[in-house]
Amino acid sequence: MKKIKGGITAPEGYLSSGVTCGLKKSGNKDLALIYSESPAAAAGVFTSNEVKAAPVLLSQQRLRQGKARAIVINSGNANACTGEQGFEDAVHMTEVTGKELGIDCEEILNASTGIIGEPLPMEKIEAGIPGLVSELGPDGQDAVEAIMTTDTFPKQVAFSCELPQQGCTVKIGGMAKGSGMIHPDMATMLGFLTTDLVIEPGLLKEALQSVVDVSFNRISVDGDQSTNDCVFLLANSEAGNELLQEKNEDYEAFVATLRKAAVFLARAIVTDGEGATKFITIKVKKAVSDQQADTVARQVANSSLVKTACFGSDPNWGRILAAAGAGGTGIDPEKTEVSINGQKLFARGLPAESSRDDLAGLMDEEEIEIEIILNQGDSSLEFWTSDLSYKYVEINAEYHT
Amino acid sequence: MKKIKGGITAPEGYLSSGVTCGLKKSGNKDLALIYSESPAAAAGVFTSNEVKAAPVLLSQQRLRQGKARAIVINSGNANACTGEQGFEDAVHMTEVTGKELGIDCEEILNASTGIIGEPLPMEKIEAGIPGLVSELGPDGQDAVEAIMTTDTFPKQVAFSCELPQQGCTVKIGGMAKGSGMIHPDMATMLGFLTTDLVIEPGLLKEALQSVVDVSFNRISVDGDQSTNDCVFLLANSEAGNELLQEKNEDYEAFVATLRKAAVFLARAIVTDGEGATKFITIKVKKAVSDQQADTVARQVANSSLVKTACFGSDPNWGRILAAAGAGGTGIDPEKTEVSINGQKLFARGLPAESSRDDLAGLMDEEEIEIEIILNQGDSSLEFWTSDLSYKYVEINAEYHT
Repeated sequence: MKKIKGGITAPEGYLSSGVTCGLKKSGNKDLALIYSESPAAAAGVFTSNEVKAAPVLLSQQRLRQGKARAIVINSGNANACTGEQGFEDAVHMTEVTGKELGIDCEEILNASTGIIGEPLPMEKIEAGIPGLVSELGPDGQDAVEAIMTTDTFPKQVAFSCELPQQGCTVKIGGMAKGSGMIHPDMATMLGFLTTDLVIEPGLLKEALQSVVDVSFNRISVDGDQSTNDCVFLLANSEAGNELLQEKNEDYEAFVATLRKAAVFLARAIVTDGEGATKFITIKVKKAVSDQQADTVARQVANSSLVKTACFGSDPNWGRILAAAGAGGTGIDPEKTEVSINGQKLFARGLPAESSRDDLAGLMDEEEIEIEIILNQGDSSLEFWTSDLSYKYVEINAEYHT
Repeated sequence: MKKIKGGITAPEGYLSSGVTCGLKKSGNKDLALIYSESPAAAAGVFTSNEVKAAPVLLSQQRLRQGKARAIVINSGNANACTGEQGFEDAVHMTEVTGKELGIDCEEILNASTGIIGEPLPMEKIEAGIPGLVSELGPDGQDAVEAIMTTDTFPKQVAFSCELPQQGCTVKIGGMAKGSGMIHPDMATMLGFLTTDLVIEPGLLKEALQSVVDVSFNRISVDGDQSTNDCVFLLANSEAGNELLQEKNEDYEAFVATLRKAAVFLARAIVTDGEGATKFITIKVKKAVSDQQADTVARQVANSSLVKTACFGSDPNWGRILAAAGAGGTGIDPEKTEVSINGQKLFARGLPAESSRDDLAGLMDEEEIEIEIILNQGDSSLEFWTSDLSYKYVEINAEYHT
């Protein structure tokens, strides 16, 4: 696999656009469109929150047919907690887009991010869609800017991938947005992936789920979960390879590259987390099961005490150990080892012999690696998170009406 | 039941003391003793963390016999992650105390709070114990001060309780400490309850567990869980009532009063939470089960977004609803109602019609009540937490070596 230029439109046959229709006070772009010139297989992964925004409900429904050609996205308003009217607005947004594109609205997916509980200003959106469609082009820049909320930089990536059995090349493109804060809402994560691969829709769905599990589902900024989170993947067959319909080497090569793209975007979201000053990688090793490793990693990642210690560059292994063992995760403190940035701090039930001098400056860099070796089994995983800073509190306490 | 003066020594037959032995740099009191003049039934509830401090392991072991006459407690050092030496130190601390008191050390429980991963300075503790024993007296003030870490006020309470069937009066006393922060440790909660009731030890244990479930287990400051958390209850029979050995009206009256004392102490811990500027009561009503109500309350209480919104006095029902539904709690957003301080903000899937003016100042007071009515069943409960402020980040990021 090879990193290539561009983002969502890097694979063959994709166009995108981003325009301003007036949903954001700032006047920044707030309407984006991803369009495949040919029919595409499509899959999605959605928030497990019981409170699901209208575009999530609509897109889940439409993806049952396993195909889609376009995704219309707005930022500035989440269309969440907006009742039946919100659902009708989401449908209508795809109808207007379908009419302009000359395709059936059933082939159009929808995503939103922004304010919760306020009706979508449909007249602005309707007025914006013709320009959105006429602006469609091969560059992904406008689209990735149009999905940003309080993101401080656009997040996009593209890779090419050799299929070893067939000997042909396919491309993967992606863009994402991270934690945004506009009253009264929450961190929302949206991810969009495209490929020109020819693949059977069921297999595409499996590929996306397996990749999301180890990328977007392995990050947290504050442990809160949005009503609007979703990740989409379109595959439009433009690469012309033979239809992938089983988990052979070609499939593995594709998934490995897709994972690379998804992990890149997921890590970019953490880097740009609200108020983040540190990028924290949590490696849990030798767990009895993936589930134990996941629980331990998640508890450490979401511990306010661990996050503030990272903000304060404090090599506080006691907080890490306590978060790892909280609520009965089945770890054995006598077997558990804790290291920070390669320095062993706790092992065999005791703190490591390390002088204050050894630890001085250990966590001053922006990247912190916490390694927790459970010595109970063979499961290992990585998880990414950010620290908890004054800025996080400021962003989330003070930016309100 | 009636609130009465005093704390841990308010029931008949209890003495306590608190002295300085030099564990705290500040020179504040750091060694406390609770002593019953006669043998007492005893019960304890302990942290579910896999990482348990030595005094927790020791006290769990000793409580198997269902009785204890004294509890020796130190602050300034948690005796956690200290290996076999830590356990031997805990045993030795009770041995020295037992010798001075003239009782078997098997009847002495132990609790610690403070720095993790550093050996107990046993010479200081040994030197302090004779004075600790000679200072024993009927006042609880020194003891409650000696268990404080960064608590900003001592937390104690006492109640008297009429047993309606037997027609006699028993007393309940209690003291607690909340979240303390000394590098490198975590929020530790210790609770001590005494009574002069005559009660069968098994029933005493049931009473304590049922009360802890709805008091100390219904609070959170930051969602982190300590290696040292424990709550003890001694019952020394000095009230002279007929032995309580079944769940009759007298038992119910006792438990109701015990709950009152425990809830008082638990709420005091939240009020004194690190950096807390608001006291938040979360009421979850009409849940399908206690477990659902508990999960919903806990998720809302531990949401950094909800906590920062409370700090910022922002009536952000969207964050509350999203936290309530996160990860599949089985709530139905169409049925769920959210109110803050009596003002309905969300119902029937839609935001309530409320003007900005209605909401201005809604959360300015120090007490905030969040009510979440699920309209799915009959289970209801209350949970208490504090907000997430700059001060919390400061305390936990900056107070390190």
